[in-house]
Amino acid sequence: MQQTSTDRRPIVLITNDDGYQAQGIAELAKVISKHADVYVAAPAEPNSGKSHSITVGNALTVKEINGFDAVKAFSISGTPVDCVKLAVSTLLPRKPDYVLSGINHGSNSSASVHYSGTLGAAREGALLGIPSVGFSLNNNDASDFGHAARVAESIFAQMLRLAFADGYTYLNVNIPEGKPKGIKTCRMVNGHWDEEALTTTDANGNRNYELVGTFVAAEPQATDTDEYWLRNGYVSVTPCKLDVTEYKYIDILKFNL
Amino acid sequence: MQQTSTDRRPIVLITNDDGYQAQGIAELAKVISKHADVYVAAPAEPNSGKSHSITVGNALTVKEINGFDAVKAFSISGTPVDCVKLAVSTLLPRKPDYVLSGINHGSNSSASVHYSGTLGAAREGALLGIPSVGFSLNNNDASDFGHAARVAESIFAQMLRLAFADGYTYLNVNIPEGKPKGIKTCRMVNGHWDEEALTTTDANGNRNYELVGTFVAAEPQATDTDEYWLRNGYVSVTPCKLDVTEYKYIDILKFNL
Repeated sequence: MQQTSTDRRPIVLITNDDGYQAQGIAELAKVISKHADVYVAAPAEPNSGKSHSITVGNALTVKEINGFDAVKAFSISGTPVDCVKLAVSTLLPRKPDYVLSGINHGSNSSASVHYSGTLGAAREGALLGIPSVGFSLNNNDASDFGHAARVAESIFAQMLRLAFADGYTYLNVNIPEGKPKGIKTCRMVNGHWDEEALTTTDANGNRNYELVGTFVAAEPQATDTDEYWLRNGYVSVTPCKLDVTEYKYIDILKFNL
Repeated sequence: MQQTSTDRRPIVLITNDDGYQAQGIAELAKVISKHADVYVAAPAEPNSGKSHSITVGNALTVKEINGFDAVKAFSISGTPVDCVKLAVSTLLPRKPDYVLSGINHGSNSSASVHYSGTLGAAREGALLGIPSVGFSLNNNDASDFGHAARVAESIFAQMLRLAFADGYTYLNVNIPEGKPKGIKTCRMVNGHWDEEALTTTDANGNRNYELVGTFVAAEPQATDTDEYWLRNGYVSVTPCKLDVTEYKYIDILKFNL
């Protein structure tokens, strides 16, 4: 964490992966606009599960949209990462001070960090040297973002006071349903999804499969993880890094030509 | 690294992100089939830049295809990660012993690990507990995969002898053009892409943007990184981890409700 100037009103880029029409992003823009000049640049369509993907070989169409507590808002025919890249390089008056992504409709704890477009956008912000946060509410069907929006506002206000400026870290914030008991900074739990494939045969005789995943926690007894704290009614904040090198193997794992 | 039984002939799932018709995957299947029972399950279409994305809400269509040195080969109307999920859960006779992805047409060193579909597939293999490797040749337009295929075969044969069985690590292998001088296990270099947006206006008056990225190395002087060794004619092997927690901030970064 470095010190940064907080004299000017910060510029915040807000994006998401549920698309610009989702309720979660409107709620986030509303509370953050009390503290910063908010610009929204969000996907034109839902982009859940789009991870850190980018659009290759196709141009991105940008439309100015209304209805946000934002200086300007844009919908973009691309992924969440495309939105961050295009907003930072081109659409905003200057490089934003923060990138906030969400509030996602559904949890992004544990291995979801790898699949989530919400977290893809936050990671891209961090790659560009901008302190970034992904916010997610642990309910896919939630319509009440009241508690979640208050949590996002509170964490952002504290980031401003901390002058948190480590653009090489992004925060994965997951918020339980209802009024949380507190906020815990913690690691992500190890786990993965096992898939079951529902099979159908289409009119042309092709086999079609729909994957239905079940989360398998690798360490259900652990008491220092995001899953543990969420299960117990706390907000989890997991600081995440961009360098994914597994250093312990560098000196062990040697290959010859 | 744990010991594993090597009595039975291993089963290897091969996939990629350039699509099943790409030359790189055919070359990989050919050399690996000398050592293992190879199954190919690869995207029906090019999926470069698709990262760890999954298909949400649409069924995946599977077609059996010919022309590989493989027991069976499938094209799948989804992402590289979809291919791994569907192959491991459904298409293969049992859980494969290894997932190999590539050989990608183009480098995936440094921050490309976040964008690459080739590496997304390898990461998914690791999430499923399967030792996995992404192979990439440092030339987007290469038609000669001779050296690269020999490197992939050599590394795979050494993995078999090592009984390398850490399914929670995936290897990011990048191969320079021409005959390599050797193989170095090393960290990924820090860096990112700065984007420039080429702007056009379409017939409906919408602004369209095409992003063109330039890689910015954060540490051009470093001599222990993938970029350094590639630049000097060596193959880079970067072991990568699934847990992206930035542990150094857990005790420092505290928030209140």
